[in-house]
Amino acid sequence: ANIVLLPGDGIGPEIVLQGQRVLDAIATKFNHQFTYQSCLIGGIAIDQTGDPLPQPTIDACLASDAVLLGAVGGPKWDDPSAKTRPEVGLLKIRKELGLFANLRPIQTFPELVGASPLRREIVEGTDILFFRELTGGIYFGPSGRETIDGVEHAMATMVYSVPEVERVVRLAAEAARGRDGRLTSVDKANVLEPSRLWRQVAERVVREEFPDVKYDVVLVDAMAMHLISRPKDFDVVVTSNMFGDILTDEASMLPGSLGMLPSASIGADGPGLYEPIHGSAPDIAGKGIANPLATILACAMLLRHSLKLEDEAAAIEAAVRKVLAAGHRTPDIAAGEASIGTEAMGDEVLKVLA
Amino acid sequence: ANIVLLPGDGIGPEIVLQGQRVLDAIATKFNHQFTYQSCLIGGIAIDQTGDPLPQPTIDACLASDAVLLGAVGGPKWDDPSAKTRPEVGLLKIRKELGLFANLRPIQTFPELVGASPLRREIVEGTDILFFRELTGGIYFGPSGRETIDGVEHAMATMVYSVPEVERVVRLAAEAARGRDGRLTSVDKANVLEPSRLWRQVAERVVREEFPDVKYDVVLVDAMAMHLISRPKDFDVVVTSNMFGDILTDEASMLPGSLGMLPSASIGADGPGLYEPIHGSAPDIAGKGIANPLATILACAMLLRHSLKLEDEAAAIEAAVRKVLAAGHRTPDIAAGEASIGTEAMGDEVLKVLA
Ligand SMILES: CC(C)[C@H](C(=O)O)[C@@H](O)C(=O)O
Ligand SMILES: CC(C)[C@H](C(=O)O)[C@@H](O)C(=O)O
Repeated sequence: ANIVLLPGDGIGPEIVLQGQRVLDAIATKFNHQFTYQSCLIGGIAIDQTGDPLPQPTIDACLASDAVLLGAVGGPKWDDPSAKTRPEVGLLKIRKELGLFANLRPIQTFPELVGASPLRREIVEGTDILFFRELTGGIYFGPSGRETIDGVEHAMATMVYSVPEVERVVRLAAEAARGRDGRLTSVDKANVLEPSRLWRQVAERVVREEFPDVKYDVVLVDAMAMHLISRPKDFDVVVTSNMFGDILTDEASMLPGSLGMLPSASIGADGPGLYEPIHGSAPDIAGKGIANPLATILACAMLLRHSLKLEDEAAAIEAAVRKVLAAGHRTPDIAAGEASIGTEAMGDEVLKVLA
Repeated sequence: ANIVLLPGDGIGPEIVLQGQRVLDAIATKFNHQFTYQSCLIGGIAIDQTGDPLPQPTIDACLASDAVLLGAVGGPKWDDPSAKTRPEVGLLKIRKELGLFANLRPIQTFPELVGASPLRREIVEGTDILFFRELTGGIYFGPSGRETIDGVEHAMATMVYSVPEVERVVRLAAEAARGRDGRLTSVDKANVLEPSRLWRQVAERVVREEFPDVKYDVVLVDAMAMHLISRPKDFDVVVTSNMFGDILTDEASMLPGSLGMLPSASIGADGPGLYEPIHGSAPDIAGKGIANPLATILACAMLLRHSLKLEDEAAAIEAAVRKVLAAGHRTPDIAAGEASIGTEAMGDEVLKVLA
């Protein structure tokens, strides 16, 4: 398989390197051939080409089987008056690759749950899989400024069409079938017209195509509450782009270990894009102390979703659990224990896989 | 002063009654005259008039000094295909009274913080005052459906104008001056044009008019994380309508006692509207066990913000703290202790005030 690496900014290159090492170990162990091509995205792409997503990167991704992304952004490119910004690359690659569904598994790790801001009895055992719609909604609708009677206005449009809702709800409902069989759709149908459409379509898709899935609907404001007060009650959650942005970030705090959480962005066909949830962490970039485990777990998702290599994915996930159980910690997840660096953590995963 | 009571649905009438008793006790104690007029809103207004906000209610509110609201809604009026719904009354009264700022204080009560889903050391001492913009943004912009090439689309428009941002930021910055002097503005300026306008305007207002206020900016997804991981770091938070809807509900979980949290909605002049944060709780309506303390604390906000009676407001707040310290609990905030009912809790507050 042909894998594009997009190291990006900050700690991106360091963690993507460990991901690549783990993929190589899997290739050896299971007798696969993975070839890699590294391309520019984000701040480094702006510096080198003026464009946060240069055309050669798009072309390489489109021709690949899967994409592994580190992280983009940093203070260097934060000037609001700049011509372009690293995030533009992120939004654009989602559109170019048709990545309409962002999957974020939120699971607690027994060894790390003591670092959760939530009380153990509330959070322990949480296992949610989010599906965030990623190429529609208010992120991509018409927007602009207008001066009306001398007063400046700014607007952005939240738009959803029936097929946009259908396809992401279908993916989520299918995933629910392979898990606990429960699906929660989150919207704001008591106020927003696109949410009313969302609710109608989701309800119909589940009723007609997934009658075996236990389905319910929660308002986004209520969901923001439930995620804190009873996170264990949810299995698969599907929601629109902006609500998903907020809710999945909220949920990412629950396990108490942001450095452990991967995400996958997938489309109808074509390559998926895999990345850690955390950002480019410019403050620790280059220090060799970033936690590579979220990226390594993103590689497991890559194997599962894009390459359909379930055993290989499970092998990585089991290895990560073993490494944690053996007490290995990067600084971000150390609670008193001695900690090791990025490469040493990669080594530990490789040892278990060997 | 002339106060309109809007009991609404579910437990609304029970808790508003206790609020009124407390206001009466304040009137006696401090030698004021409060007159009341009860009007229809929500589901009961739909049942009796077909309209969730009948014109006589609007007229009475506009002619009043302040409005005390219980709660609206319930399963009886939840049919999505109904001609109108209780929430329509809520959205309409905000617009009719020009209530552009929704204030939500989030404070922990030392006696109740054990019920917080967050660990004590994370949450104890949290004291945030939210300002949510309430009459603009995506709640009130143009919206509708359109069939394009045979595909149904639904849209809603997020719109903000310069003066809409200025006025709510000004209120929030003024409030910060009277507190810890810090203001956080929350937006999604890396994606949304109205958020970029919001950020520019907020920054300018604070720089020009409140140079003494310590100001910072946080993205809405990051804020959803920070509220869980480090809630004590925030003082006053100002944000737009929809982000405020989600973030204030998320924050309402922190103290572990939703039944204790009041909110105020205010405009440039004219009456403010005061209510508990919690809903109409149809499951316990009529049982006499609802917690009236959020409504009683909403009465304190009414006295402070609409009637400028600071001592009277402080007297109510001190009484509620005393009642809690004395161990009195309605079922929702009892942790093992024996509990008392709605009226008995009102009695306890009255005893302290007497
Ligand atoms: C950087 C930003 C544009 C992006 C988003 O809002 O989608 C990020 O928050 C994310 O969730 O991937
Ligand atoms: C009922 C609904 C319209 C309302 C809102 O979203 O504003 C509610 O959630 C609130 O926060 O008061």
